[in-house]
Amino acid sequence: MKLHGYFRSAASWRVRIVLNLKGVSATLVPHHLRRGEQRAPQYLALNPQGFVPALELDDGTVLTQSLAIIEWLEETHPIPALLPKGAIERARIRAFALVLAADTHPLQNLKVLNTLRELGHDDKTVTDWAAQTNATGLAACEVLASKMPGPFCFGPTPTLADICLVPQLSNARRFGVDVARFPILLERERACVALPAFAEAVPDRQPDAE
Amino acid sequence: MKLHGYFRSAASWRVRIVLNLKGVSATLVPHHLRRGEQRAPQYLALNPQGFVPALELDDGTVLTQSLAIIEWLEETHPIPALLPKGAIERARIRAFALVLAADTHPLQNLKVLNTLRELGHDDKTVTDWAAQTNATGLAACEVLASKMPGPFCFGPTPTLADICLVPQLSNARRFGVDVARFPILLERERACVALPAFAEAVPDRQPDAE
Repeated sequence: MKLHGYFRSAASWRVRIVLNLKGVSATLVPHHLRRGEQRAPQYLALNPQGFVPALELDDGTVLTQSLAIIEWLEETHPIPALLPKGAIERARIRAFALVLAADTHPLQNLKVLNTLRELGHDDKTVTDWAAQTNATGLAACEVLASKMPGPFCFGPTPTLADICLVPQLSNARRFGVDVARFPILLERERACVALPAFAEAVPDRQPDAE
Repeated sequence: MKLHGYFRSAASWRVRIVLNLKGVSATLVPHHLRRGEQRAPQYLALNPQGFVPALELDDGTVLTQSLAIIEWLEETHPIPALLPKGAIERARIRAFALVLAADTHPLQNLKVLNTLRELGHDDKTVTDWAAQTNATGLAACEVLASKMPGPFCFGPTPTLADICLVPQLSNARRFGVDVARFPILLERERACVALPAFAEAVPDRQPDAE
């Protein structure tokens, strides 16, 4: 199995955490986003969207979109479970994940920020956009997490919610968000990063880290 | 069951289609997005993100995020199935859905377009942003759909992919995208709108339609 990704991509990071938690080994194939390698014809043949990550299975099947890849890993490698059995609880965890993966991360990815620059905005305006996007998404998640006991976002074990939270908090810090505004999320993050599966997935520990 | 939504919201529209397909009845509770009703304190108490849709169950449980609501409906009302049994196929359908629901729709929603206006952009620039976002997402979906037989996006019955496609094509037209560039998607859309479940979910047929 090959994971096509980029060390700093939050979506690739999510999949790395899940591979580690489930003990599934995959060869990392880096594609340097800032150099545009995701738009190379060979990569577009794998993923017509030109985004990372993509998970290439041994038979050549290619899966894309981090949440779809993670649901596939959950279905094919169910232990440890990243979604509980109860339908309501599963819905709440998926909703938390989607606040970040659908309504936050895509609005502050490299492509959108480059479009803002092309529209004539300076670095401060672009960074403010990214910071505000992160702060808004995390503020909603802080409320959602406040309804649940810890140590993880939805109780005693890490779920899809934690897997989306940890990379997003990192992005928020990179754009200058004062994450101290989210004390519950920070507690949940501390529980996560104490686990080797999370610690080994951080960007700085990837082979393509700069 | 109550579906909090807005007639024109693509995410509400997705859930309406699924309720219809599965024969689940819900009272529609409209929140007028252009008048900011989704930011009223009573609504924020239901959904701290201030977005529609939200599905309020009879016991007061509130589910948010359209894809999480749809996965819940799929788990609790499995017939007709909107995801097949095979894990690879499920992953492909979810990836198609996420191209639209995560990487397309959130980038062209009312809130983002209003932010662009606040940054000083005129109507043409804002509409071009929305059109370009829709065109990019649909172009990726056209490639994904081209690998599968019809009449629906992933074969003989409608899936989560079709449920995300139909409202997004409507948005694309609203922003002036030449959707004739996506002949396969238009064929899939024709198969969908021939079904009453899709036809009855369109914005113009909702009680809050203007």
